[in-house]
Amino acid sequence: MTGPRVADETAARMTATIVRDGGRDEVAVEEPLELRVDGAPLAVTMRTPGHDEELALGFLFGEGLIDGPREAGLNAELANNVVEVRGPLSRDPGSRRFYTTSSCGVCGKGALEEVAVHAPDAVAGPIVDRDLLASLPDRLRQPAFERTGGLHATGLFGADGELELVREDVGRHNAMDKVIGRALLDGRLPLSGSILCVSGRLAFELVQKAAVAGAPILVGVGAPTSLAIELAADRGMTLAGFARRGHVNVYCGEQRVRRGESR
Amino acid sequence: MTGPRVADETAARMTATIVRDGGRDEVAVEEPLELRVDGAPLAVTMRTPGHDEELALGFLFGEGLIDGPREAGLNAELANNVVEVRGPLSRDPGSRRFYTTSSCGVCGKGALEEVAVHAPDAVAGPIVDRDLLASLPDRLRQPAFERTGGLHATGLFGADGELELVREDVGRHNAMDKVIGRALLDGRLPLSGSILCVSGRLAFELVQKAAVAGAPILVGVGAPTSLAIELAADRGMTLAGFARRGHVNVYCGEQRVRRGESR
Repeated sequence: MTGPRVADETAARMTATIVRDGGRDEVAVEEPLELRVDGAPLAVTMRTPGHDEELALGFLFGEGLIDGPREAGLNAELANNVVEVRGPLSRDPGSRRFYTTSSCGVCGKGALEEVAVHAPDAVAGPIVDRDLLASLPDRLRQPAFERTGGLHATGLFGADGELELVREDVGRHNAMDKVIGRALLDGRLPLSGSILCVSGRLAFELVQKAAVAGAPILVGVGAPTSLAIELAADRGMTLAGFARRGHVNVYCGEQRVRRGESR
Repeated sequence: MTGPRVADETAARMTATIVRDGGRDEVAVEEPLELRVDGAPLAVTMRTPGHDEELALGFLFGEGLIDGPREAGLNAELANNVVEVRGPLSRDPGSRRFYTTSSCGVCGKGALEEVAVHAPDAVAGPIVDRDLLASLPDRLRQPAFERTGGLHATGLFGADGELELVREDVGRHNAMDKVIGRALLDGRLPLSGSILCVSGRLAFELVQKAAVAGAPILVGVGAPTSLAIELAADRGMTLAGFARRGHVNVYCGEQRVRRGESR
């Protein structure tokens, strides 16, 4: 079904050319990736190939399973779809009591408390113009998205709005994991002076990953959920959504946003 | 952070009113749901409350863990965020070899083979006008999305384009699970005469769920991934994407699409 891959090695694994009724299209590549730690399978995710070591390390960091870089590499014998990470892990991955509190059973409060265990304390962070926040999606270059329309992106920005790093993936959580994994490898965590921007909606798990990475400001093109706002407020973060066409909504952490024209 | 819930019971749990810098907004509610089978925790998902029994049963069906309806109910003592399902399951949930084949390691081929075990054989299915496929997103009513901008939807349509069932959720997989769970409870599976339409992109797992439910046609507003197309083709399904403004792209299963004006 998929046609020949394009020449550039990274791009080749991120997009594929297909033939459909009306012509030829490029689509985003999606393949399973198995994550192994010291040889033991831990998780499988569907992802766009590329930057898989970053994906693995960013995922483990966001889950509180590692607190620093680890050796990681693809296993070429397994179709380049297995990434092996050298341990040790900070805790037993099976010991997590997902989002459960003793007081109220399974609830959002338990989810907030779980993130608090792994996330650094709130920092003052940069103060930025509202217009700058609104402009970030336009600065979030997505070369593969433009060809396929099928990829989410996460961008890491300086406080001046300069794009420092961008990763794309069919899974929006994967794009965030790849950015955080890269930052971890580069010794840049916590991201206390930076801004993260995502191409989609703002749900709990994206805020969780940004919080654990210590990012004070998270901006999204789409809508936030109730629990995303609650978590950002709980962690002292600035959460902004619907960033498009010069406008942005700020849901919490307004102290870092200098008022401008847009609202 | 979240304000008082609105009066209607279902709507109250799906959306919440928040106060932000520029005024008041409604946002989609997101809370964890734990799925237990015969008392044993099986999975946790972040979801929009409502239709949780359908979500649980649709998820289990799509994973090949049940092949018919089961008793299911919320545990009110645990903040209505635990859904208990009475077994038995069709197989041990821990026995799944996620997307792995003996021939090539972890790869998309293994993922296709895994779906083939649980999905019914391809059916002829209805033949529909291209314009009808293109019009489905406009017929996919999303009452809570219109207030929040934060909810994905899946709709079940008759071959004449009539909307028969719609479910919304912060998670697009959850919206699909809820529709399939409802169809399972109503004795409507396999969906061999129906069309499924989703509000977002078309990734592997959405095609998987539609395939296992026996739906011959799946339409999305967004882009498909490579593996989504491969799976749909492998299962003999019609997959259409970018359905918007009177246009639609058909990626496979063109024999069910009568040519019309749009392309």
